Amino acid sequence: MSLLVQKFGGTSVGTVERILAVARRVKAERDRGHDMVVVVSAMSGETNRLLELARGISADATAREVDVLLATGEQVTIALLSMALEAIGCPARSYTGGQVHILTDNVHGKARIVDIDGERVRQDLALGRVVVIAGFQGVDENGNITTLGRGGSDTTAVAMAAALKADECQIYTDVDGVYTTDPRVCPQARRLARITAEEMLELASLGAKVLQIRSVEFAGKYRVPLRVLSSFEDGPGTLITYEETQMEQALISGIAFSRDEAKLTVKGVPDQPGVAYRILGGVADAAINVDMIIQNIGADGTTDFTFTVPRTDYRKAREIVTKTATELHARDIQGDERIAKISVVGVGMRSHAGIASTMFQVLAREGINIQMISTSEIKISVVVEEKYLELAVRALHSAFGLDAENGSGAAA
Amino acid sequence: MSLLVQKFGGTSVGTVERILAVARRVKAERDRGHDMVVVVSAMSGETNRLLELARGISADATAREVDVLLATGEQVTIALLSMALEAIGCPARSYTGGQVHILTDNVHGKARIVDIDGERVRQDLALGRVVVIAGFQGVDENGNITTLGRGGSDTTAVAMAAALKADECQIYTDVDGVYTTDPRVCPQARRLARITAEEMLELASLGAKVLQIRSVEFAGKYRVPLRVLSSFEDGPGTLITYEETQMEQALISGIAFSRDEAKLTVKGVPDQPGVAYRILGGVADAAINVDMIIQNIGADGTTDFTFTVPRTDYRKAREIVTKTATELHARDIQGDERIAKISVVGVGMRSHAGIASTMFQVLAREGINIQMISTSEIKISVVVEEKYLELAVRALHSAFGLDAENGSGAAA
Repeated sequence: MSLLVQKFGGTSVGTVERILAVARRVKAERDRGHDMVVVVSAMSGETNRLLELARGISADATAREVDVLLATGEQVTIALLSMALEAIGCPARSYTGGQVHILTDNVHGKARIVDIDGERVRQDLALGRVVVIAGFQGVDENGNITTLGRGGSDTTAVAMAAALKADECQIYTDVDGVYTTDPRVCPQARRLARITAEEMLELASLGAKVLQIRSVEFAGKYRVPLRVLSSFEDGPGTLITYEETQMEQALISGIAFSRDEAKLTVKGVPDQPGVAYRILGGVADAAINVDMIIQNIGADGTTDFTFTVPRTDYRKAREIVTKTATELHARDIQGDERIAKISVVGVGMRSHAGIASTMFQVLAREGINIQMISTSEIKISVVVEEKYLELAVRALHSAFGLDAENGSGAAA
Repeated sequence: MSLLVQKFGGTSVGTVERILAVARRVKAERDRGHDMVVVVSAMSGETNRLLELARGISADATAREVDVLLATGEQVTIALLSMALEAIGCPARSYTGGQVHILTDNVHGKARIVDIDGERVRQDLALGRVVVIAGFQGVDENGNITTLGRGGSDTTAVAMAAALKADECQIYTDVDGVYTTDPRVCPQARRLARITAEEMLELASLGAKVLQIRSVEFAGKYRVPLRVLSSFEDGPGTLITYEETQMEQALISGIAFSRDEAKLTVKGVPDQPGVAYRILGGVADAAINVDMIIQNIGADGTTDFTFTVPRTDYRKAREIVTKTATELHARDIQGDERIAKISVVGVGMRSHAGIASTMFQVLAREGINIQMISTSEIKISVVVEEKYLELAVRALHSAFGLDAENGSGAAA
């Protein structure tokens, strides 16, 4: 008998019918003899409905009260799912974050979990009950309701699994696992049977939206076996592992991409210490996240400075940088909103050379110009013109042996 | 400086605009220097929306989980009202029932308040904050969420006022006070400036739906000064008092009526000990509330037994009684769903004789036959044919000097 923590997101519990389907799925596992803890999100659309109410009251609502408001979303779901379980003869108990002492710091809207007391949950499990827990929420040390931010239910599930030393934490989503890349862009994409947490983190931060980054970090910290599966179809999903040495470790696990960035180049700034700070300082002060940064030193004692920002922050960043560039007597400013970032990710890079050159060769063969390059231990990212995105992803997917026909992993 | 507890029901907080209006009203009192505690219900329609979701899951939802579900209704309102207060520069803090330790027994759906810890509220008040509390809900000693049943927000407000020794508990509703009778039935009805708690209880239990009975009982127990006012128009409302000796004590304070009852008569049952129990036992076992009971002894050694039940339970009660009547060899069963109960209420009855005879005389003059009579220390109730209801109420209202023209109380 195992202890499983299952998490169902907003789409999986979006209607009364889907909640009933989740109850049947949970009961089936219970009937196989597993102890079951279920973490749920708000029904899809509910959080937006609540935020709409808040906006009707005030454009700048108090963060503490927004959390009190939003926390009702998951509370509705835990009640309905527990009713559904009891209605099919499966004893169940619902708990809010506060009721099972999910202690967080007091940063409303993006609180971090500090501690969980699993005692009450263990008592209910011992009595044969399924325990249904509201994701996304907790309480600070003064009992104020906090929320973990969007997608925080994944973190709740992982933290609960860690606290209870669960055998597996299963995250049910609307996709059936982690793919080598987005199947909408590359039809040859296939589901990975396993992926390391490290790779998963790189994929997540690069735009693959299967799991929330913090939940994967959390899982890694406590070595919680994590599995991503579909709540709409059966299948083994993708298991996130912590050991890297597998028999058939692929060089590359997946290809991530993002259209959410824009590029800014400041040309002909004096090549002096402190220039990078002066250009990026103002951008950082405006809470704009800078991703890739490149600096080329020119022959004339000036330098070209290029960086990427989220596309939604592009105009604001351009305004800030224009002001700085004038102060620095820079020659010119150029911007480009039509870029895409493509990254190949794989722990195999650590032991195998030549992956970067393969990547560059493939892109060159397709006539795709590389605008920026950035690397880390297990990933290589390039920025290209946005119109080449699909072509680049497909060519790389095939070149690194990820296509379904060649794949040794699970079928797509 | 006083400490006021104000309670706003579902209609008063039914929309974002109304919540903003409540915030302005609360701030105005705060600006006058009062410490303010506000208790709110779920936005009108919300409780029904949630119950509809529950019905979609199961026709017979677990009571514990229904409470978890319904408690979200008030939680949404406290968050929105606190936001609204903060948005107009009035510091505020919201609390669920659990957060301010409204301790109840564990009877889900109709829990009773056992204790309230006012400490946290006092701390916030000392810091100059308005405290906004979710009505209708609490927690049992194991931290499970409970609800007090429909209208329980009034009880929360009164209990909170008692715990904090508030100077006044003000219940805002969609009427501007307690009336001598329903103005829709009797246009001459006028608002009472004061009424005793005892009279209020009789009026409430007899169908006047201004305040929940339990909240008045609670207020009486702790002598909480209670005032009923309108959240839609200004005015002093009606103050519920505990002293009976006023300078101009009216004989009769008000006339209540109910169309919600039906009558059952079992004819010709043997006049033996235990007959009443045999007839009513089965009805009580089915959790049907019996109100008035009359037994007439006939000349032939048999008796006629008549009682009233809620109209919604009439069919069920009739089935049960038919079975018993057969066993008792009763002569006949008669039922009537078209009855109305009319009651005159007033503490003046204690010291003044002749009120009953005035009542019967007035009804006789109007040609209205009295089917049943029941009396208590401060009320006289009669059952008449439903079609006479309006006529009877108006005639009695006028006869007992309650009409607006003659009234010494507040204007209607």
